[in-house]
Amino acid sequence: MSWNTFGRVLRFTTWGESHGPALGAVVDGCPSQIALSEADIQPFLDARKPGQNRFTTQRREEDLVKILSGTFEGQTTGTPISLMIENTDQRSKDYSEIAKAYRPGHADYAYDAKYGIRDYRGGGRSSARETAARVAAGAVARLIIPEVKITAYVCELGGDAIDRSVIDFDQIDQNPFFCPDSWAAKRWEEKVDEARKNGSSLGAVVECVAEGVPAGWGAPIYAKLSADLAAAMMGINAVKGVEIGDGFDAARLTGEQNADPMRPGESGSPEFDANHAGGIAGGISTGQPVVCRVAFKPTSSILTPVDTITADGEATQIRTKGRHDPCVGIRGTPVVAAMMALVLADHKLLHRAQQG
Amino acid sequence: MSWNTFGRVLRFTTWGESHGPALGAVVDGCPSQIALSEADIQPFLDARKPGQNRFTTQRREEDLVKILSGTFEGQTTGTPISLMIENTDQRSKDYSEIAKAYRPGHADYAYDAKYGIRDYRGGGRSSARETAARVAAGAVARLIIPEVKITAYVCELGGDAIDRSVIDFDQIDQNPFFCPDSWAAKRWEEKVDEARKNGSSLGAVVECVAEGVPAGWGAPIYAKLSADLAAAMMGINAVKGVEIGDGFDAARLTGEQNADPMRPGESGSPEFDANHAGGIAGGISTGQPVVCRVAFKPTSSILTPVDTITADGEATQIRTKGRHDPCVGIRGTPVVAAMMALVLADHKLLHRAQQG
Amino acid sequence: MSWNTFGRVLRFTTWGESHGPALGAVVDGCPSQIALSEADIQPFLDARKPGQNRFTTQRREEDLVKILSGTFEGQTTGTPISLMIENTDQRSKDYSEIAKAYRPGHADYAYDAKYGIRDYRGGGRSSARETAARVAAGAVARLIIPEVKITAYVCELGGDAIDRSVIDFDQIDQNPFFCPDSWAAKRWEEKVDEARKNGSSLGAVVECVAEGVPAGWGAPIYAKLSADLAAAMMGINAVKGVEIGDGFDAARLTGEQNADPMRPGESGSPEFDANHAGGIAGGISTGQPVVCRVAFKPTSSILTPVDTITADGEATQIRTKGRHDPCVGIRGTPVVAAMMALVLADHKLLHRAQQG
Amino acid sequence: MSWNTFGRVLRFTTWGESHGPALGAVVDGCPSQIALSEADIQPFLDARKPGQNRFTTQRREEDLVKILSGTFEGQTTGTPISLMIENTDQRSKDYSEIAKAYRPGHADYAYDAKYGIRDYRGGGRSSARETAARVAAGAVARLIIPEVKITAYVCELGGDAIDRSVIDFDQIDQNPFFCPDSWAAKRWEEKVDEARKNGSSLGAVVECVAEGVPAGWGAPIYAKLSADLAAAMMGINAVKGVEIGDGFDAARLTGEQNADPMRPGESGSPEFDANHAGGIAGGISTGQPVVCRVAFKPTSSILTPVDTITADGEATQIRTKGRHDPCVGIRGTPVVAAMMALVLADHKLLHRAQQG
Repeated sequence: MSWNTFGRVLRFTTWGESHGPALGAVVDGCPSQIALSEADIQPFLDARKPGQNRFTTQRREEDLVKILSGTFEGQTTGTPISLMIENTDQRSKDYSEIAKAYRPGHADYAYDAKYGIRDYRGGGRSSARETAARVAAGAVARLIIPEVKITAYVCELGGDAIDRSVIDFDQIDQNPFFCPDSWAAKRWEEKVDEARKNGSSLGAVVECVAEGVPAGWGAPIYAKLSADLAAAMMGINAVKGVEIGDGFDAARLTGEQNADPMRPGESGSPEFDANHAGGIAGGISTGQPVVCRVAFKPTSSILTPVDTITADGEATQIRTKGRHDPCVGIRGTPVVAAMMALVLADHKLLHRAQQG
Repeated sequence: MSWNTFGRVLRFTTWGESHGPALGAVVDGCPSQIALSEADIQPFLDARKPGQNRFTTQRREEDLVKILSGTFEGQTTGTPISLMIENTDQRSKDYSEIAKAYRPGHADYAYDAKYGIRDYRGGGRSSARETAARVAAGAVARLIIPEVKITAYVCELGGDAIDRSVIDFDQIDQNPFFCPDSWAAKRWEEKVDEARKNGSSLGAVVECVAEGVPAGWGAPIYAKLSADLAAAMMGINAVKGVEIGDGFDAARLTGEQNADPMRPGESGSPEFDANHAGGIAGGISTGQPVVCRVAFKPTSSILTPVDTITADGEATQIRTKGRHDPCVGIRGTPVVAAMMALVLADHKLLHRAQQG
Repeated sequence: MSWNTFGRVLRFTTWGESHGPALGAVVDGCPSQIALSEADIQPFLDARKPGQNRFTTQRREEDLVKILSGTFEGQTTGTPISLMIENTDQRSKDYSEIAKAYRPGHADYAYDAKYGIRDYRGGGRSSARETAARVAAGAVARLIIPEVKITAYVCELGGDAIDRSVIDFDQIDQNPFFCPDSWAAKRWEEKVDEARKNGSSLGAVVECVAEGVPAGWGAPIYAKLSADLAAAMMGINAVKGVEIGDGFDAARLTGEQNADPMRPGESGSPEFDANHAGGIAGGISTGQPVVCRVAFKPTSSILTPVDTITADGEATQIRTKGRHDPCVGIRGTPVVAAMMALVLADHKLLHRAQQG
Repeated sequence: MSWNTFGRVLRFTTWGESHGPALGAVVDGCPSQIALSEADIQPFLDARKPGQNRFTTQRREEDLVKILSGTFEGQTTGTPISLMIENTDQRSKDYSEIAKAYRPGHADYAYDAKYGIRDYRGGGRSSARETAARVAAGAVARLIIPEVKITAYVCELGGDAIDRSVIDFDQIDQNPFFCPDSWAAKRWEEKVDEARKNGSSLGAVVECVAEGVPAGWGAPIYAKLSADLAAAMMGINAVKGVEIGDGFDAARLTGEQNADPMRPGESGSPEFDANHAGGIAGGISTGQPVVCRVAFKPTSSILTPVDTITADGEATQIRTKGRHDPCVGIRGTPVVAAMMALVLADHKLLHRAQQG
């Protein structure tokens, strides 16, 4: 797998910069004869789209996807699916400040250290705008796994967690935070408003649940479903932590507390009395819901001046003006869901190759 | 990269079951002309070796490594390095119980669901014994990155965290827990003794710090240093969570709190006033120490009977007798360090390929 | 490496069908700070472009390349380079005949057997039109290896070989056949004219020489320079044979005849008295010119009716009307050169990763 | 795929030097529940084994294979299969000559140029001894494709071709040349005897036919069955050319001559009136026999002194004494068959992953 390619048998390659003419994904390895049109992809891009309410960046992109290859008469043909999204709102702003000084917490300095050159306009390739391509690819992946239902939501924002006893998946689309707890959503509104007004930013935790994954997906030892999910999620912009099942909390349990007892199930598959494992044992799915949690740091784009250096190594200060998400975790939610779909679809296909 | 292969340009493939004749690793892509002998590898295997004190499994394996290829007159030749460890303590115990019933929390059921067959002796391929091969491979990787100093230690055991104000790396080898806080080590002794006596088990969190990593390692977008580390760590047996830098805590900070301000440094490289990012920005190293934290669940091998099913789908109960680690996180510590070395060495070589 | 991706550290992925809206390549792993604009790529596409004289298909495509990502202010940034070529001459012809019946020798039946669906318009993904994307990618690869001079030419057409004693590389661009022997070019003119008039087709052999490749590129055992070249060339449409150096003729020599004696060279590198090996020994370049020969079959698109079956399995006959190359080997010549550049550039970068 | 790894979903990694303690292969991705024991592998190693008659090297190796992992109670488990062959006849000869001077035509100089170090004993990693590991891996691959019958034979030796009108596969095992034409075998006996006595060497062409491959294996564009076969074959020691179907001869045919007309077949699959294409169209199998031809150069190990240089760049001469194959193509025959099996098994599994 390459630098800008992800996956094993279902592989996608993304390309494009924040302020280039377009960005896109090439999805390779998708089985043939799956009905696919732009209409299958667009709703997922719309969910991620910026500028939809006051809680996300006011950059306005239509994010209209075009399918350039890989389908014929509305069906996939088994050939690579090229998806393109043109950039429309490349506001000609003044980038002279970030051209010269490194924004702490951003990839600016690291890119320059690595490549000796960087497209500083809007963060270039390191911009979260690249995740639009993942969401498009993820929409294709979902069609490969119709048996799986993926739900992603913010479960904690600025340190304020949802009440798990009142989780209602129907609430997720009823508020601007992908929040399954309507009371928490109310509280977060205030929180994010305040951060936005202060030019500050907040972190968040996104949880993703995949129901309907059969037992047997995932491949030991180095293609574990859990390891592939970890790579997929940790590769999302601003992510600093990943948990499967109970995650770090499992490290605080005893073996007795952490057990997921099994019983004979009606369908022939076993039933489990708990899901501490998050649906994965030994890197292979168990038939329980696959549960993953992802920590998004607060974006470094804040109005408070921070000490930094210029490209020439001089001391200076920088404050990041412009249109930014006060909490990148919110718009990261559809990206988490897309990566879950991509990893699961990959492992569904991989599993077939391994069957006797 | 394959199911049992890890890495991009420095790749290692492991093989072997817990109770087979041997296990091993083939390390491919190692540069030539590096001095290498068994003596460079053995100490790391010794650190991981079971049966060294009463806090780990009493299974006794010599874990003597043999280099079967890839060196000539004490130097690497650029050809694949085959490392083999023979299994010596395959006690002929009675496996009839776990042959028939699935141990909840273990990979037993998942392997059977996937493959329709499993080597149940000692867990077969899903046994943590496989990690000996990673530790051997990791020892080779360390020789590729002499500029990097890797330190791994248990920072929390059974929910009891170390006091970060008294961390002393010299303590790590002075106690059986790889604990850098001598007071915590004392407390843990009691904790683990109790768990062992009760046939219970405890989780742990392992922290790993890599000092000396220059800025520029890591490759956006899908070969981020952070993503590769996440895959590496989540692929270790019993791991359920991975954090880079502040990890999940970062999700509770504001942008101001999470900033890592930069200043001109004396060496020409910038200095940072904080390291919330854990040495990685945009997936690329920044020159700060790379910091990773890994959550180990308590092992499912406990004496308390747990509800489960037989391979035929009948209800039963199982208790796991035999020689087990009461806290697998302890012996996981050298494995975490090995995976850190393997990922960093891989990215050092990868970085060269990308230079203009 | 994936189905539609080629390469190890310099990887390119192509997408697109003959009659879709566009086709393209994403080139990943290109080092940063290399000057790159459309003007560096277009001449190579122009050399491959159809419709330039009466000896190639009369389909007219502008084949204008657009760079959609990966450069900033005229330089590569190390991020993926997305190249797109829009299809402009998708003549709305009647495809009903090839929609129903399989053209023997084409991929029609094989695609249907594999995928159960095929884009029959112009051959869809199996069309040689896809090679335009390779030529574009190859132009980028050439910039990575400025030390190497690649020359490709037709050395045999319809069984009529060039006279090797009069080879003149300056002649290659002076005739429509990429022929380095002006007398042969004259003869071929007649040959191809006749085939074209009869609706027949001819095979050809293309030779490619890369001068300036230093000793040491190529990686044993399964990434041999020769093996990667063989894969690259055999993957070109209509190719049925590949030779390195003396190729099949070497099988008719004795060891004495086939020897490439070495002498001390002035530059410190050895000099060779012969190059039967084609510049590769043990899969690694020796510093001599890398020489490769590629056999193109005659295209199956001929006017003579051939027995075949319909998609429903009924017997029928088919004759392929429309605009076709009477000798696909001619326009295959720039494709061979492009693949040589891509393999060499990949191995140059790979070689760096392996250095101690 | 890595330097010493081959394959896409069925991957094998080989390791080992000619004069090291052992060599081996790790086969990864093999489906579970396939009966496998050493007895399934040994006959193929025996066929390749040196020292069986006067026409091959007199080096005597038992080449006994051990399965170290991946099976349980006689069946594959889906985990990596580690195969090891110990080196037993590492005659302690004097290597001082080849330690100092490069043998022209061998990999000596190229390895030194690449790695700055080489194991000169018996050619080290570049020795054809490595192919024993491939033959072992190939034996496993054959079990994955029981529907396919692979036959490999020498079809030309020292420029003397078999008479295709008398081909009799039953003859192949009746002579020391894997020759399907008993008259040719007689002639070759004399030829090889003479070469052996003169310390000379001869080239050969090996043909391999795979019957029973269903239509649909192979993946466009860069994982074509033909391209993967080309890489597999060109990567064998001493190979300089690969053809599929008519190969270079196809370049001398017209489209009419090269056509493979199709007719409705009795089984539902079409029947073909010819097989110029060698069973592959557009990189995908057509259901006809897959036919491949491989050119082996004469080995460079000859008694006639050849000009060369020392490692210090001084002019000298070298003659290669010792136990060598007068015609490496003979013992290359089982290797060609093994690589055919490995590529086909890989594509069988790959094909499954791509199914809708």
